[in-house]
Amino acid sequence: MPKKQRLRVVPLGGLDEIGKNMTVVECGDDMVVIDAGLMFPDAEHPGVDLILPDYSYVLKRRDKLRGIVITHGHEDHTGSLPYLLKDLGRPVPVLGTKLTLGLIKGKLNEHGIKKAKLREVRSGGHVSLGQLGFDFIAVNHSIPDGVALFIRTPVGNILHTGDFKLDQTPIDGRFTDYDALAKAARQGVLLLMSDSTNAENPGYSKPEANVGESLRAIFRAVEGRIVVASFASHIHRMQQICDAAVGSGRTVVVTGRSMVNNTAIARELGYLDVDEDRIVDAYDAASLPPEKTVVLCTGSQGEPLSALARMANRDHKTVQLEPSDTVIISASPVPGNEMAVGRVINRLAKAGIEVLHKGNADIHVSGHAGSEELKIMLNLVRPRFFMPIHGESRHLRAHGRLAEQVGIHRDDVFIMENGDCLELASDSARLAEHVGAGVVYVDGLSVGDLSQVVLRDRQQLARDGIVTVVVAVDAQDGRVVGEPEIVARGVAVGGETSDLHEGAMARVKKALAKMESEGVTDHSIIERAVREGLSQYLWEAVRTRPMIIPIVMAV
Amino acid sequence: MPKKQRLRVVPLGGLDEIGKNMTVVECGDDMVVIDAGLMFPDAEHPGVDLILPDYSYVLKRRDKLRGIVITHGHEDHTGSLPYLLKDLGRPVPVLGTKLTLGLIKGKLNEHGIKKAKLREVRSGGHVSLGQLGFDFIAVNHSIPDGVALFIRTPVGNILHTGDFKLDQTPIDGRFTDYDALAKAARQGVLLLMSDSTNAENPGYSKPEANVGESLRAIFRAVEGRIVVASFASHIHRMQQICDAAVGSGRTVVVTGRSMVNNTAIARELGYLDVDEDRIVDAYDAASLPPEKTVVLCTGSQGEPLSALARMANRDHKTVQLEPSDTVIISASPVPGNEMAVGRVINRLAKAGIEVLHKGNADIHVSGHAGSEELKIMLNLVRPRFFMPIHGESRHLRAHGRLAEQVGIHRDDVFIMENGDCLELASDSARLAEHVGAGVVYVDGLSVGDLSQVVLRDRQQLARDGIVTVVVAVDAQDGRVVGEPEIVARGVAVGGETSDLHEGAMARVKKALAKMESEGVTDHSIIERAVREGLSQYLWEAVRTRPMIIPIVMAV
Repeated sequence: MPKKQRLRVVPLGGLDEIGKNMTVVECGDDMVVIDAGLMFPDAEHPGVDLILPDYSYVLKRRDKLRGIVITHGHEDHTGSLPYLLKDLGRPVPVLGTKLTLGLIKGKLNEHGIKKAKLREVRSGGHVSLGQLGFDFIAVNHSIPDGVALFIRTPVGNILHTGDFKLDQTPIDGRFTDYDALAKAARQGVLLLMSDSTNAENPGYSKPEANVGESLRAIFRAVEGRIVVASFASHIHRMQQICDAAVGSGRTVVVTGRSMVNNTAIARELGYLDVDEDRIVDAYDAASLPPEKTVVLCTGSQGEPLSALARMANRDHKTVQLEPSDTVIISASPVPGNEMAVGRVINRLAKAGIEVLHKGNADIHVSGHAGSEELKIMLNLVRPRFFMPIHGESRHLRAHGRLAEQVGIHRDDVFIMENGDCLELASDSARLAEHVGAGVVYVDGLSVGDLSQVVLRDRQQLARDGIVTVVVAVDAQDGRVVGEPEIVARGVAVGGETSDLHEGAMARVKKALAKMESEGVTDHSIIERAVREGLSQYLWEAVRTRPMIIPIVMAV
Repeated sequence: MPKKQRLRVVPLGGLDEIGKNMTVVECGDDMVVIDAGLMFPDAEHPGVDLILPDYSYVLKRRDKLRGIVITHGHEDHTGSLPYLLKDLGRPVPVLGTKLTLGLIKGKLNEHGIKKAKLREVRSGGHVSLGQLGFDFIAVNHSIPDGVALFIRTPVGNILHTGDFKLDQTPIDGRFTDYDALAKAARQGVLLLMSDSTNAENPGYSKPEANVGESLRAIFRAVEGRIVVASFASHIHRMQQICDAAVGSGRTVVVTGRSMVNNTAIARELGYLDVDEDRIVDAYDAASLPPEKTVVLCTGSQGEPLSALARMANRDHKTVQLEPSDTVIISASPVPGNEMAVGRVINRLAKAGIEVLHKGNADIHVSGHAGSEELKIMLNLVRPRFFMPIHGESRHLRAHGRLAEQVGIHRDDVFIMENGDCLELASDSARLAEHVGAGVVYVDGLSVGDLSQVVLRDRQQLARDGIVTVVVAVDAQDGRVVGEPEIVARGVAVGGETSDLHEGAMARVKKALAKMESEGVTDHSIIERAVREGLSQYLWEAVRTRPMIIPIVMAV
């Protein structure tokens, strides 16, 4: 064993947030990236399409990078992979289980990445990446084929749970592998990194099979068409929906791009089992009577262009809903999506359609471990040090308190921030230098060009609108030529703008006259005078503070 | 009794939404407005301060208006009253119970309205307004002194529940008055209008006293300072917080403007009972040791300028939180506020402070009746016709289904929209003409000037930003003078704008050259050409579609 090696663990994403999970594990000359996720923007990020972790730390050390290990196929663990692979510019092995790689393959294709080195692993299997050894341990989650990672290093062993729950009746019979976790504990776990998403939730998450029971009861009772919206990656849920459909003599109609793609991938790879003649494309469903139909669709987050939103707006190409139909939203709104989901529910309700959702029916369970399950994980693994991962600040702290409750000393719990570096020796751990980690915004084709300034501008524009004032000045003597021009957008002055417009114009002219009388010809000084005068006027007149853009133009 | 009178019920707000409740009841020459609420804007309404119901229907008939009856003191029932009173321009009696009027008085003062005709009523009391007779019936709600209304008219009787729940152990001993409701039923209820907010929630809402139990247990267990954020109008909750504080040897420190105002009003009017020396202003609290303190504050909705948000941001003037402190958010986030509340929780968690909230502790119950309670109301009142009110589309329909379940015929359930008019005779009801009802936005000092166009503009500005292009042309010959000027704000082109800016400039010049070669001098045609050219360029180059404002200026 090489002596005095440094083991470094650097989370680049997934701390203080739900999403864009990415962690670097580094030992000597070997580095591995665990997960490469993205995050979907909230209202604080108007116009942003995606948010990626800032992985420049990885790019700077790309020669040491032995592989990228993906714990499961959710986008908050896989979504930045296409960007990372392009930026790396050399084929780095990507390791994951069969379904995980199947879903990744689809995404890489969309990005035109053909030559990725995808390496399939099995839970129970082992792979070495330089001097880092990886054991893949089956865990339950809201997508099949998820794994935790037992990472052997010359300094000590790490257990990274990925996202997990403990389901005692998993519908695919694949349990979180308690034996493998216990074995890891026997070999000694220097550091446990564990999923904190539900650390605030008391007790246990309910088993996925509960949803199947509810669905079967609903499918038996309902007479009209049934529409079920869920996460397109939740193959277990799809299986239960298909089973309930077939069991009640219905055929499953699949609609929504990602739902169509993922059911195809899942069936091809053997993760979704439904007879060929009981699952059809929406275009082939016209002949099916509503009472013999279950529509399986996207849109559980209220996404405005999704299949469910289109049905609610009556502009879905093939499915026209009737008041006798029942819609089931078999999902939980991701924080920030509550209003969007509510809008879809209200639109459906208004059309007389009954909507069952998490608030009024038992049709969803979480894929993350509740606080009691997290304590089981801690007690099973008995780590020397503990780092809660995958969660907002509140969840990381709550998870830290759980660890203290089961006897881990407060000083051995490391609650970190993205870009913090934990340096480990065989019996010690310390926070080393912060390596810097931020966010990269994807907006249209632009990756990383969007600055905080632009976002702040957008927020101001949204709140107060913008007024542009153009003043032409003589290029020779700097004197104002003609009338200024004032154009407002998004400003709360309504139709009757004339008074306000006149007042604004008067104030601009007053500012210009003052500049002229003082002999000022410097454009930036004139612009400032115009901005200040107009800003003051609008605040006094209508208590609004739009962005003001003065343009002095020499002609 | 005058024959052939028409009884009309027109909800102007509160349907298909939670907020801005307002209903008109009209019989012959007499009209009464029930409630005059406002709504707080969501992310769909950037920059809007408040949303009012469009009450122009009332203003047009102001001579018939005999009074405004307010069921309770929440802002979604009182908030548009200052605007309505100003617009009415004559003193119309405003009727409400003592606390309701106490809270209204404060609001009217803020608006500089001195001469309102406030008429205090008691639950159990009766008032006639023209030929409309009003009995005031006590109901439980998340504010004291709420009433339902039994309205006697020449055509038939109406029961309007206001907002209510059935609390079997109300902490002030004031029960929903079952006897009065039964008596109303015996006299015959032609139309029941009932609160639908929680119609989707199975079962019963829990009693308010449960929260007191939880608070007492927490207050006993916690060692450091306790901060409790709640709704400033929830006087029962305040009472329980004060009782738990006193019971655990602590003094209550009140902070946050509306919390300070409302505790003062509630104590003055006898609704909040706490010893003078156990409740102090934040400025007098410096000498109190943290473990002897309970801070009662605003901010339960994550409002950025509230007391709690300031504490979380470490810029509260008098309260500096320590990691040993505990924060309790004794409220539920209003839909749309989840993210804002989450941000405050995360900021507190990051400072090491434990936060108890609805998701991890029993520290809040709803003030609205759940589905079983709603069925009790329906069975108690046994109305001929039923109109669910106070709720989004989903809640109104769910309430309609509850009515069907207890035996009201579907045709006798009227699910209406704001501005719909229900016309009633002694044994019939029909939807009459739609009277028109919209929304009025308050933005700064501007009331009602904000149009949908402005809101759409703001949304586009937020998403994609704005590019202004200024072109100076010779006033005589229409030829372009000098260089065009291009200014972008909120556009995703980042710091390295040079390439993009150059490309954009080239495309603008190309468009101008084409116009010149074709001899076009019409400003609007030149503007269109500039807009189209630039729009196409930006889409091709960076897949972004900002708002483009071309300004052609004659000099």
